[in-house]
Amino acid sequence: MKVKNSHYRTIWPDPADNTIIKIIDQRLLPHRFVIEELKTVEDFCRAIRDMHVRGAGLIGATAGFAMYSASLFAPQANANSYFQEAAQKLLATRPTAKNLAWAVERQLSAICDEEHREKRIEKLFKSACEIADEDASYCQKIGEFGCELIAAISKRKGGEQVNILTHCNAGWLAFVDYGSATAPIYAAHHAGIKTHVYVDETRPWLQGARLTAWELKEEGVPHTLIADNTGGHLMQHGMVDMVIVGTDRTTFTGDVANKIGTYLKALAAKDNNIPFYVALPSSTFDWDIEDGVKQIPIEERSGNEVNYVTGLTSDNKIETVLVPPENTKSLNFSFDVTPARLITALITERGVVAPNRQEILRMYPEKSKSLYNILMK
Amino acid sequence: MKVKNSHYRTIWPDPADNTIIKIIDQRLLPHRFVIEELKTVEDFCRAIRDMHVRGAGLIGATAGFAMYSASLFAPQANANSYFQEAAQKLLATRPTAKNLAWAVERQLSAICDEEHREKRIEKLFKSACEIADEDASYCQKIGEFGCELIAAISKRKGGEQVNILTHCNAGWLAFVDYGSATAPIYAAHHAGIKTHVYVDETRPWLQGARLTAWELKEEGVPHTLIADNTGGHLMQHGMVDMVIVGTDRTTFTGDVANKIGTYLKALAAKDNNIPFYVALPSSTFDWDIEDGVKQIPIEERSGNEVNYVTGLTSDNKIETVLVPPENTKSLNFSFDVTPARLITALITERGVVAPNRQEILRMYPEKSKSLYNILMK
Repeated sequence: MKVKNSHYRTIWPDPADNTIIKIIDQRLLPHRFVIEELKTVEDFCRAIRDMHVRGAGLIGATAGFAMYSASLFAPQANANSYFQEAAQKLLATRPTAKNLAWAVERQLSAICDEEHREKRIEKLFKSACEIADEDASYCQKIGEFGCELIAAISKRKGGEQVNILTHCNAGWLAFVDYGSATAPIYAAHHAGIKTHVYVDETRPWLQGARLTAWELKEEGVPHTLIADNTGGHLMQHGMVDMVIVGTDRTTFTGDVANKIGTYLKALAAKDNNIPFYVALPSSTFDWDIEDGVKQIPIEERSGNEVNYVTGLTSDNKIETVLVPPENTKSLNFSFDVTPARLITALITERGVVAPNRQEILRMYPEKSKSLYNILMK
Repeated sequence: MKVKNSHYRTIWPDPADNTIIKIIDQRLLPHRFVIEELKTVEDFCRAIRDMHVRGAGLIGATAGFAMYSASLFAPQANANSYFQEAAQKLLATRPTAKNLAWAVERQLSAICDEEHREKRIEKLFKSACEIADEDASYCQKIGEFGCELIAAISKRKGGEQVNILTHCNAGWLAFVDYGSATAPIYAAHHAGIKTHVYVDETRPWLQGARLTAWELKEEGVPHTLIADNTGGHLMQHGMVDMVIVGTDRTTFTGDVANKIGTYLKALAAKDNNIPFYVALPSSTFDWDIEDGVKQIPIEERSGNEVNYVTGLTSDNKIETVLVPPENTKSLNFSFDVTPARLITALITERGVVAPNRQEILRMYPEKSKSLYNILMK
């Protein structure tokens, strides 16, 4: 998508030297636009763990390139154990994100029979690029399907502005391009449908205020920033037509792990009869577990993310400030799980699907066999 | 309550010169403890509007002293219109707070037949002190009644820690002493019941992080700070035993206006079968309106409160930082309304009451007659 009217993806190999992978350091947005170079597996792990990159699809794409990077450093002897170790390091960075495990496994299986170093490098590079391209093209499809939902509301409102609430950043910055939750919004905006977005600021990391607001601004989509507390009031007063969020892991039964606070918005949407959509490429599905609330591991991050806020001072410096009294103990869960009963539908690259086992498996029939095995265990 | 082991109220006349009213400038907490002097009606209006003081009870007590202050400056001729003007200025500062109007009206009626300047001054001072004292004693009663609810949960848990979630600051800083939502917590803590508080940080003004966390720390009550987004997840996982919040206006039908985001927590409590209590002195009741969601005016404050965060830098300076891109449009409603159907009970100075018209009027029978007149209108 656009940054100062130039097109960017969130991750790309340096055209001059494709052993170098480039990313946007998202910690510094919206006040600084800094491109960072990643080389070693450690670079990639740090970038994921410390949230230089974040978001379901981008974590997956970054993990794909990380495994390619591992192949550049893998010793000829014991290459397999080197790859396994790299995989474990990557998996440990963000436990909730499904796409991370999915991309690492895809890369491992791409080289499972490959003995030649150069061939491995070539295969992993190709496959990493495919993961990134597929992510972008899946998001584009999500945009097309989701746009139809927005168009229908616009039509019902006689062409009046459609007000969409979103939480966190499931924008192009969270993927390789387009985004999941934002893809329908961008598609609708570009199709000339009057669209306006209420952006939850999304404490503690403020992905909404820092990233979603920036994306929408760069792309020219009208938007209004709100505190996470505000959405319920807006819904009570008819100011929200639909909610679209992303997800970091979705069970095949339709439970959705997404940024902490998503569950509260889903409750409010239900209470006010407002459609609540979750947009995701199928790489985000977890085909192994049935009960999201009980079974999805929820990452706990440092309480410092709650206690400190970073922003721009009046003299244009990036500064971090402490809000509560010093040494206040904080608890920082990154995600919560929204039960399927609160979700209107999922928007995937194959279409819009009801959040239940039957419909999801009907849409992804190739998964039914492996599921059958699991359920029979 | 305690600040560095000395007892303070939130507002008091200077013992050496009672034309000067002292307050704690709450904008600077928790990093600076600054006492401010108020003299003119303009001082009082600024203190309320710009949130040097805030919170249901303290706004009422401040308005009481403001009307006393008006009497010190009122001209002999046209004193009444001077008082009316002062009242209007005060009422315009915070439209949602019921205690503000209640205290202003109480002060106006205290002098309605009084022609003598000195007598007016004397009456208004006495009445302002009574408003403050009554607020403190009502909060103390709320503490006693609410403590019984906490004790019952403690007993059910075999003496294990009772986990209470609260939103915003309905602590002693929001009243004259004790607080409303915190009064039961302080009472339980002092009675030796193991109590632990999850403190919602409460964006955008961060009353929880800045004020509630500070109060609880100074009083020695165990607590954990969380982002507003976190409470739903905690409730899903059995980590919250009860919710207690305050209110800025409560209809006699049991609908509760409180800090924006309260409604979301009430939905989550309902969804997880967790009791949701609202603590209030009866001055917070609105005896005139029946439908809180439709009829309570909701204050809209500057979007700057969303866009900027103030805190302490590493070199101990108070600094304000911008979070979203410059010129991001923000919407900042201060309150939302939680419908009575989501509330377990109200904790008042007369006892615990179900949030419905019949039970509330049974507890406040003296209001039935005026209500009868309103309903017959």
